[in-house]
Amino acid sequence: MTIKAYVYDAYGTLFDVHSVTKKAELLFEAHGKAISEEWRKKQVEYFMLHQLTGRYIPFSEITRNALLYTLKKLSLQCNEDALDSLMEAYLELKVYEEVHNTLHKIQKNDVKQVIFSNGTYKMLEPLVKKRELTDVLDLLSIEDVKQYKPAPGAYQYAQEKLCVNRDEILFLSSNFWDITGAATFGFKTAWINRGSLPLDVLGVKPHYIFSSLNDLLNEKELHS
Amino acid sequence: MTIKAYVYDAYGTLFDVHSVTKKAELLFEAHGKAISEEWRKKQVEYFMLHQLTGRYIPFSEITRNALLYTLKKLSLQCNEDALDSLMEAYLELKVYEEVHNTLHKIQKNDVKQVIFSNGTYKMLEPLVKKRELTDVLDLLSIEDVKQYKPAPGAYQYAQEKLCVNRDEILFLSSNFWDITGAATFGFKTAWINRGSLPLDVLGVKPHYIFSSLNDLLNEKELHS
Repeated sequence: MTIKAYVYDAYGTLFDVHSVTKKAELLFEAHGKAISEEWRKKQVEYFMLHQLTGRYIPFSEITRNALLYTLKKLSLQCNEDALDSLMEAYLELKVYEEVHNTLHKIQKNDVKQVIFSNGTYKMLEPLVKKRELTDVLDLLSIEDVKQYKPAPGAYQYAQEKLCVNRDEILFLSSNFWDITGAATFGFKTAWINRGSLPLDVLGVKPHYIFSSLNDLLNEKELHS
Repeated sequence: MTIKAYVYDAYGTLFDVHSVTKKAELLFEAHGKAISEEWRKKQVEYFMLHQLTGRYIPFSEITRNALLYTLKKLSLQCNEDALDSLMEAYLELKVYEEVHNTLHKIQKNDVKQVIFSNGTYKMLEPLVKKRELTDVLDLLSIEDVKQYKPAPGAYQYAQEKLCVNRDEILFLSSNFWDITGAATFGFKTAWINRGSLPLDVLGVKPHYIFSSLNDLLNEKELHS
């Protein structure tokens, strides 16, 4: 299999969105986990709804709106300071432990490596810098085309920017909705099944199912 | 306000999707509630993903696929009989207690009353018949146009079939994603907030927020 570009989703795949739990817990004792879970759930729901109804707003606004809803739903006192503080936590998400090593090893194969995310550049740049991945990863955001993944227009934009054929792209994501969109568009896909979840019944089968990015290095077919 | 057509969502608005809990509990002791909740969650996620990725399959298949995933996720033994039995429960959902009275009273105003649903006719017809609503409600399904709500094409189809202006339609739904789509398209909207949830932060404000359909009868503006 000839792969010319490794394209990674950011949130949930390289970066742990639930690392905001710590700050959420400091601000709202005993609610950290609930905040983190509802926040992510609503964030995903919100960008899908904006895409479905054809009203684009940037991912930063969506993320803030999802947080606002979350605090209201959990009946927590919500002020600008708390919102700002949690939004800042999104610029400092932890990177999954195997990411650094895996991406550096893959880079030796002389392939392109790119983040392709629903996040804005202003959200992604500080994250990639802080987690010392700037030398192995380029950045691409749907912000340029205002089409949220998993809509086909998003993946099409990535393909055009990468200038390779659809099936020469390996798209890696922990989010099955993202795998669904990428596979439907014609990318090769690897589902990083960090949560040991069953395969969704959506008529889509990923080319690979990995439990973490470590497995990527062991896949002989990819490195022959 | 001149309203010429009252358009109701079906699942969650007129019919209680969680009335499947009883049968689920009989089949899988101690898991009834978890099955019902995960099933509905996945059903909504799945039709949105099929819409977003442009691959239509009927709502009956989506509902079955969502159930299949649910049983796998909950590590429950899943066989065809159990699937069939729970799918049948979807044809016998309970109607919310105020529906019958409200719809009959509104009918006296000589307006159109229609269900407009993502469900297929084969799923909706037995339900409307069993709950004795055939004399007050017409049926309209997105099946005709293969565009799932909340995509604009779905609401556009409903408007064309009803032959009234967008703002002469009052669209009623308990599902905020549905209100978002209908309001964006230009319908008047009433959110039946059965779960006492906060308003979603999606840049959409419903014209009315009711706790049940009972409130519809008390809204003087609608009946002047």
